Amino acid sequence: MAAGFSLAAAGQVVAQTDPLPSWNQGAAKTAILDFVAKVTREGGPDYVKPAERIATFDNDGTLWAEQPAYFQLLFAFDEVKRLAPQHPEWKGKEPYRSVLAGDMKGLAASGEKGLLQLVAATHGGMTTEAFEKSVADWLATARHPTKKRPYSELVYQPQLELLAYLRANGFKTFIVSGGGVEFMRVFAEKVYGIPPEQVVGSSGVVKFAIGPDGKPQLLKQAKVEFIDDGPGKPVGINRFIGRRPILAFGNSDGDLQMLQYTVGGSGPRLALIVHHTDAEREWAYDRKSSIGKLDKALDEGRAKGWTIVDMKTDWKEVFPPARP
Amino acid sequence: MAAGFSLAAAGQVVAQTDPLPSWNQGAAKTAILDFVAKVTREGGPDYVKPAERIATFDNDGTLWAEQPAYFQLLFAFDEVKRLAPQHPEWKGKEPYRSVLAGDMKGLAASGEKGLLQLVAATHGGMTTEAFEKSVADWLATARHPTKKRPYSELVYQPQLELLAYLRANGFKTFIVSGGGVEFMRVFAEKVYGIPPEQVVGSSGVVKFAIGPDGKPQLLKQAKVEFIDDGPGKPVGINRFIGRRPILAFGNSDGDLQMLQYTVGGSGPRLALIVHHTDAEREWAYDRKSSIGKLDKALDEGRAKGWTIVDMKTDWKEVFPPARP
Repeated sequence: MAAGFSLAAAGQVVAQTDPLPSWNQGAAKTAILDFVAKVTREGGPDYVKPAERIATFDNDGTLWAEQPAYFQLLFAFDEVKRLAPQHPEWKGKEPYRSVLAGDMKGLAASGEKGLLQLVAATHGGMTTEAFEKSVADWLATARHPTKKRPYSELVYQPQLELLAYLRANGFKTFIVSGGGVEFMRVFAEKVYGIPPEQVVGSSGVVKFAIGPDGKPQLLKQAKVEFIDDGPGKPVGINRFIGRRPILAFGNSDGDLQMLQYTVGGSGPRLALIVHHTDAEREWAYDRKSSIGKLDKALDEGRAKGWTIVDMKTDWKEVFPPARP
Repeated sequence: MAAGFSLAAAGQVVAQTDPLPSWNQGAAKTAILDFVAKVTREGGPDYVKPAERIATFDNDGTLWAEQPAYFQLLFAFDEVKRLAPQHPEWKGKEPYRSVLAGDMKGLAASGEKGLLQLVAATHGGMTTEAFEKSVADWLATARHPTKKRPYSELVYQPQLELLAYLRANGFKTFIVSGGGVEFMRVFAEKVYGIPPEQVVGSSGVVKFAIGPDGKPQLLKQAKVEFIDDGPGKPVGINRFIGRRPILAFGNSDGDLQMLQYTVGGSGPRLALIVHHTDAEREWAYDRKSSIGKLDKALDEGRAKGWTIVDMKTDWKEVFPPARP
């Protein structure tokens, strides 16, 4: 936008070709449009150089749904079922037995340790390429238990528009998620337009080795390396991006430190939170949810004037239309 | 380049406006130009989509010099001297005493453990922002002990041209170095045109905390987190970039696995090694050097037809002209 181009004129242009058609008019949409207008206005007091227009998005519950459980966990369950014929011992061994029997109570009893075992069994002991293929195969065939759609269609249409709008305005968009980095990279480019090198996430230990065929390979180990959640998010941003975001978007207490870190810098900053308020089109949950718990971040966001996006009222559409 | 545009014509254009003027005509330059021509030729058998044109460069000895010691280590020595007034106990304590006395024999006696102590004392116990400032201040004032130039001028002019040439042809250029990621990011954008998010390196543990001023901060700890060297390089590439490079450039055995991993993929690949053969303009060292040892990678590179760049004969210029 050329210096001197008036705000009113910019407003008209926006009104004529709405870059965020799935966002209803309201405080959240206005906050986004105003923020992008001011940081891109050359010569203006809030101008930010393109190289510094870093925007970070949580994934689960912010870019795609996360109920009734994180989709990556549902992938692990499906993998246990797929791999069970090669592991006859699983039938009598927790937590595998519970998963195979569909016994969610039994699974809950195995606690976090049980879940980590499941993740280790389905995410480790293979090359990075074999893992990538298993995720791609699952995404191509699996359906969400209640929505009956492919998981990659349970992304939020308003966020797809926001990502594209930010990029069209010189932003570099990143995912910063507690999800596994190698899991997300399988679909992030195709679904969100975010290339692998702009995905930050949790990771397991990986070892380099020369394989039996004489070719170099990377082997995923059954051991956690880095958890990109809570205070791990600003640490991950520092390690992978090396620049403080000017815009961050989350939906749970696991995003609180990323949002604090983002607004803690000087100059214009925008912190946003998706509040899941739509039991009809999506799900309604916040303070008491075991998945995507939003409690402290909601209080701090309200107290500090962060933009709380009310899914029910702010989003005209939630999911994209089903693919033909 | 449009499909059907003839190779001969492309050769003429290159000759007319040489994108690599500091490279002498020879096998190395030809290998680079041919590789870039074929991966960018739309419709050709070796065409690579821009998103997959990942090029990774080692830093020490590949993009800038590394003698008489890694520059980051010289920074640590200078920092010990700068901080000594606040640490009167250092005068009687190794390895600090040796550094302060300029006693390189005494320092050598403290071994790798001593060097790690020095790095911990000068790279930890501060915020990431304070560290960034200390590196920037040092780069602005320090001079190389024998070349008498700022360290950031001891970068290789032919490599600056190569980085720019690759980017002009749709490549995304990354640093993948054993050096500290936060150290390199201070100058990588200005000197190499490589933004912070495209720098992969070794790192220390960083903790998130709310500071005494109520502001969030990232505190560097005196503990190593990840060593991006040797087999750590393909691991770092997988973790940070998530895509196998099609071109990699190194200069030492610490780059061997990165080069193996790069050529191990399908499709066109280019592996390059700087061989330091120029005792007059730079330094001459390889198999027996304690810094930047090039032995196994030289053998494997020659055996497998990787491009070995002979600094003395392949580079018309080594360093850029001194800044006025």
